[in-house]
Amino acid sequence: MSRIAYVNGRYLPHPEASVHIEDRGYQFADGVYEVIAVERGRLVDEGLHLKRLGRSLSELEIAEPMTEAALKTVMREVLRRNRVRDGIIYIQMTRGVAPRDHAFPGGARTQVVMTARRAKLANPKTVAEGVRVITVPDLRWARCDIKSIALLPNILGKQQARQAGAYEAWQVDRDGNVTEGTSTNAWIVTAAGEVVTRAATNAILNGVTRLGVIRVIEEAGLRFLERPFGVAEAKQAREAFLTSTTSYVTPVVRIDDSVLGDGKPGPLARELGTFYRRYVEAGGQDA
Amino acid sequence: MSRIAYVNGRYLPHPEASVHIEDRGYQFADGVYEVIAVERGRLVDEGLHLKRLGRSLSELEIAEPMTEAALKTVMREVLRRNRVRDGIIYIQMTRGVAPRDHAFPGGARTQVVMTARRAKLANPKTVAEGVRVITVPDLRWARCDIKSIALLPNILGKQQARQAGAYEAWQVDRDGNVTEGTSTNAWIVTAAGEVVTRAATNAILNGVTRLGVIRVIEEAGLRFLERPFGVAEAKQAREAFLTSTTSYVTPVVRIDDSVLGDGKPGPLARELGTFYRRYVEAGGQDA
Repeated sequence: MSRIAYVNGRYLPHPEASVHIEDRGYQFADGVYEVIAVERGRLVDEGLHLKRLGRSLSELEIAEPMTEAALKTVMREVLRRNRVRDGIIYIQMTRGVAPRDHAFPGGARTQVVMTARRAKLANPKTVAEGVRVITVPDLRWARCDIKSIALLPNILGKQQARQAGAYEAWQVDRDGNVTEGTSTNAWIVTAAGEVVTRAATNAILNGVTRLGVIRVIEEAGLRFLERPFGVAEAKQAREAFLTSTTSYVTPVVRIDDSVLGDGKPGPLARELGTFYRRYVEAGGQDA
Repeated sequence: MSRIAYVNGRYLPHPEASVHIEDRGYQFADGVYEVIAVERGRLVDEGLHLKRLGRSLSELEIAEPMTEAALKTVMREVLRRNRVRDGIIYIQMTRGVAPRDHAFPGGARTQVVMTARRAKLANPKTVAEGVRVITVPDLRWARCDIKSIALLPNILGKQQARQAGAYEAWQVDRDGNVTEGTSTNAWIVTAAGEVVTRAATNAILNGVTRLGVIRVIEEAGLRFLERPFGVAEAKQAREAFLTSTTSYVTPVVRIDDSVLGDGKPGPLARELGTFYRRYVEAGGQDA
């Protein structure tokens, strides 16, 4: 089956889907995006994703290109045309096409690109075995709370992880604390059994899966703290895990060369993974 | 006359010049660029620009798409087809087109886009009157030495300047020191007559015009220092100016609400402007 991409009102065969060279997304990284999981035809926490998308646009003063209802219709059409029941949908919006000039152009029209593909989320083998992460300096800008397409530091970190044979790179700020992964949030479980992740300031992207897992933690009555944690603390943690739209809750079993516990996914991470799957099946926060 | 853009080996009418939606430049800001001034058909400091382009590619491990000789041929063809004798040429290179995944794709082919347009560089009225700059926090990442297309913080700063009726925004680091403008380097002249600009570390882009002006300063036997300077020092400086490929040496006469001296371009900035024009006419460092 050939894939179809949505580009500014048109449904195009994927190989022909293109944008103008003066799209500000291409010349200035002047745009934002979302990736939403699709399970059995249902968009996981669509409401939270669209809320965050709206916030990202608003923070950058990029105009909403269409109503939320219209956007939802297009999303469903993209899923339908690509016959995706389980996978992801990718949405990118940029400020518009205009002669190259740094300042915002007058009268630009927000550009919208959407694609979908089938995917098995939270690969069971990966989740069962757990993953390794490396630590790298956090090179990013001061507004990581905006889900922008200016992802160059993120890809450099992910590439370092890939080259080290690791799944992800945890980025470390100037104070020696972990901010987050390059496309995932970072969590530890302390010896006291507290689940810890960094608070959602400008230093991290407030993951929708992060919010889902916080909900799950609260409903399970587990002890939860939002605070920074350092690399040393993480390496001595009882457990660790990461979360994202495509990884759900994936246990971390090794940080750099430090093996956590017995090198197997911890019980709390596994339990949260199970709870989170149930949360997804129950419709997440849209339910 | 209709404009022509070069896109991966083809010369296309500008409105039709497009790139694939999965070009990594569009999805990840995974690319670099150069803007080169053209005066009387000659590329100003082409050698320094191509050297920097090579360095940017190398730092990001993006493959050189063609030999330097081939690149120079394409550049001249783009100028010829657009009949640009005085203006700028814009060159953008990205890692390639590949299914969206953060880590570097295997076997990607570097994408090349080039455009040219007529422009009057270093607008004489602007240079004669001097410009106002505002100061903003430097939000950027830790590798500003790479001329990447991840320009989102830069455009936000430039937009703030535009809204304040200013020409440029000088970005200020955590220590209160000016790094550089959003698309220009920042300079002051101290009471002692020293010309000061920040050293070319990872915190700034080492401007080709910056390098040209340093050469001019040395040849003129002026006192020159590379060191950080704070906002307070800049506001009390005897003179200030900014440099870039399109602004040459443009005097700064006001920083935020502080008027410098008598509010007119300083004598040293004007002299350097004249010297720099002569340097350009003499062929810059390619001579």
